[in-house]
Amino acid sequence: MTAALLSPADLWTDIAAVRERAPLVHCITNLVVANFNANALLAVGASPVMAHAPEEVADMTAIAQALVVNIGTPDALWAQGMTRAMQAAAARGQPIVLDPVGAGATPYRNRLLAQLLDTALPTVIRGNGSEILSLAGTGASTRGVDSSASADDALDAARQLARRTGGTVCVSGATDHVFDAGGRWARLRNGHPWMSRITGTGCSASVLVGAFCGVQPDDWRATTAAMALLGVAGEIAAEASLNAGEGVGRMQWRLLDALQLVEREEFLRRVQLSLD
Amino acid sequence: MTAALLSPADLWTDIAAVRERAPLVHCITNLVVANFNANALLAVGASPVMAHAPEEVADMTAIAQALVVNIGTPDALWAQGMTRAMQAAAARGQPIVLDPVGAGATPYRNRLLAQLLDTALPTVIRGNGSEILSLAGTGASTRGVDSSASADDALDAARQLARRTGGTVCVSGATDHVFDAGGRWARLRNGHPWMSRITGTGCSASVLVGAFCGVQPDDWRATTAAMALLGVAGEIAAEASLNAGEGVGRMQWRLLDALQLVEREEFLRRVQLSLD
Amino acid sequence: MTAALLSPADLWTDIAAVRERAPLVHCITNLVVANFNANALLAVGASPVMAHAPEEVADMTAIAQALVVNIGTPDALWAQGMTRAMQAAAARGQPIVLDPVGAGATPYRNRLLAQLLDTALPTVIRGNGSEILSLAGTGASTRGVDSSASADDALDAARQLARRTGGTVCVSGATDHVFDAGGRWARLRNGHPWMSRITGTGCSASVLVGAFCGVQPDDWRATTAAMALLGVAGEIAAEASLNAGEGVGRMQWRLLDALQLVEREEFLRRVQLSLD
Repeated sequence: MTAALLSPADLWTDIAAVRERAPLVHCITNLVVANFNANALLAVGASPVMAHAPEEVADMTAIAQALVVNIGTPDALWAQGMTRAMQAAAARGQPIVLDPVGAGATPYRNRLLAQLLDTALPTVIRGNGSEILSLAGTGASTRGVDSSASADDALDAARQLARRTGGTVCVSGATDHVFDAGGRWARLRNGHPWMSRITGTGCSASVLVGAFCGVQPDDWRATTAAMALLGVAGEIAAEASLNAGEGVGRMQWRLLDALQLVEREEFLRRVQLSLD
Repeated sequence: MTAALLSPADLWTDIAAVRERAPLVHCITNLVVANFNANALLAVGASPVMAHAPEEVADMTAIAQALVVNIGTPDALWAQGMTRAMQAAAARGQPIVLDPVGAGATPYRNRLLAQLLDTALPTVIRGNGSEILSLAGTGASTRGVDSSASADDALDAARQLARRTGGTVCVSGATDHVFDAGGRWARLRNGHPWMSRITGTGCSASVLVGAFCGVQPDDWRATTAAMALLGVAGEIAAEASLNAGEGVGRMQWRLLDALQLVEREEFLRRVQLSLD
Repeated sequence: MTAALLSPADLWTDIAAVRERAPLVHCITNLVVANFNANALLAVGASPVMAHAPEEVADMTAIAQALVVNIGTPDALWAQGMTRAMQAAAARGQPIVLDPVGAGATPYRNRLLAQLLDTALPTVIRGNGSEILSLAGTGASTRGVDSSASADDALDAARQLARRTGGTVCVSGATDHVFDAGGRWARLRNGHPWMSRITGTGCSASVLVGAFCGVQPDDWRATTAAMALLGVAGEIAAEASLNAGEGVGRMQWRLLDALQLVEREEFLRRVQLSLD
């Protein structure tokens, strides 16, 4: 697999497609980030719909282009909604993105994740190093929802998980790594450490992956494009915040502005993509 | 009904009354927008209280000046809370605002809306074109929670719905239309397309309508005043954002600033109200 | 108890310790403020984890340094999660912060608070004047979630409550008062009235108290340090907002910036601490 197979210009094509086609993304996400996730989707030009009731998730999935399931604040009712939504999406061949927030932090989350993976194989799994290590069954434990492992510690785990699920696995951190089951591996070196001091940037990465899977059938490429856009926007926002003497509070909104307003030239100039 | 019956100065009188009297608005709103709705109420000078438990909604209604029910992220427990709150508010003759988010998107939402309308007739219903078309029973379908119909497509549906419920119906879009059961019709041409790229502006319109109904007994006038304030504030925020090279992320907070800080002269200069 | 027993420099020591040690704070908070609370914790350098499911709260408590329970939007499931989390935290001797949002507003909240106090005695209780009066059993009623009593009206109630629970009680308002069971009393005169026009500043005070209790074993001192930081940050944010002609919308994010960026000299120059 050579770099020629995926270029920064290809990633921009997908960004433009999301802006043009406004995919509808059905999110069952956590209570902490639901608002920020919805606004991130709107900023990139996608359309969010949030619905968790078991009575309606299958119908909502039927009108969406992708499903995103995030287990950040689970309970029994939401778990039931997640399960039914994944069944419905799988039956329709719709892309499913799973964000295993806090994998390894409690036995309950681990059981829930096992149940979800038993229900349907996600098209894409995106998590931090600790979460991917835990999900791959390497027995790592997680300190809350913030990673105690770097993305680089989880490369083998991510690769294994991609092979086992037959899908794409993204482990995000200082460098974001995107693997697929066939051995493709993209690395992105954008972003800024302050992004981890805004709650829900990881979760927003996952909903953006959903939006990109709604317009780009190659899920590995879609995931790479979404992560690239978020990393570049985070970098733009962090630089502007530091220049203005601002902090992580206002940076959050500069990040959304950059997701909406970044143009082709700046994206291509900044994006740091490498492939194997 | 002539323009003399409702002037921009009358609308300002209501805005000033909300700032002065700080009505308490009991909101049962969706998980995505609860924070933004509460901050929008505080920005205009009202006071929000959010409570959805069936065990306490009737008691909360008893201390509030208005009830707002928004079905954006419904489930069985919340539906029960909404129903009991509407019963309690109706029994007290308290204004009830219903925001039928995603009406038509799933059979579950349609059943819930039918049940709520069976429980009590809302004083005001506010939705986008698709939602009002669906609720009026014209059989339109909805694409998620964003409108696939323009407000102008839903004028007859809104008029019918106002007659059927005996209340006020607002269908919002590029032009906002406010009908009452007696045939009054206000049109507002403020706002900016970017408002639809901030999640919860429509839902915020509904909670502001609740605040205005808490101080102005003519619900059609209260609804018109709330929509006028939001449209003018959105316009101020969008212009400032565009001038500053900012996007929809930061515009969200300029919108709240404008809700709080807009003064009489600017409001009167900007508001575009026409009546029939 | 003399001023020498707690100096502004001591408070700064605790602020620096939170930034250095990044305590993990398990929050069971309300739906309206969950995002803002998480971002406030990240801004001060702490790490939030939100989990409410009865199945996992005990396990989450086991990896955290403090538990914060906020009853702002309670229901039966969340009440069960709160109860189990408090049992688990008490069994581990972990600090428990209780924010009795809307105490006195409905019989349901009063029963829930009685049940929680029966489960475990909080290390710290933080509320506004109305809430502390209600919780102390003085029979005051609450108007929604905003205080209808000033903090100064609730001094005796706060003192009694501290003695009864054997813990620290903070009643916040124009002046914040922090009492412990042994009779210590700190007063802070920072902050700005606009802070009460941002939803969740009080709730954020409570999660910050949790973070500080995670690094400072003297809970009265930890509470005083957290309240001092929030008050100083609010003052910085409000002054900057007024100077820039901005409102409460953008002030919210300046507040988080100040929580993150305030330095020792400015903190010491601004903090207005007095003791008895």
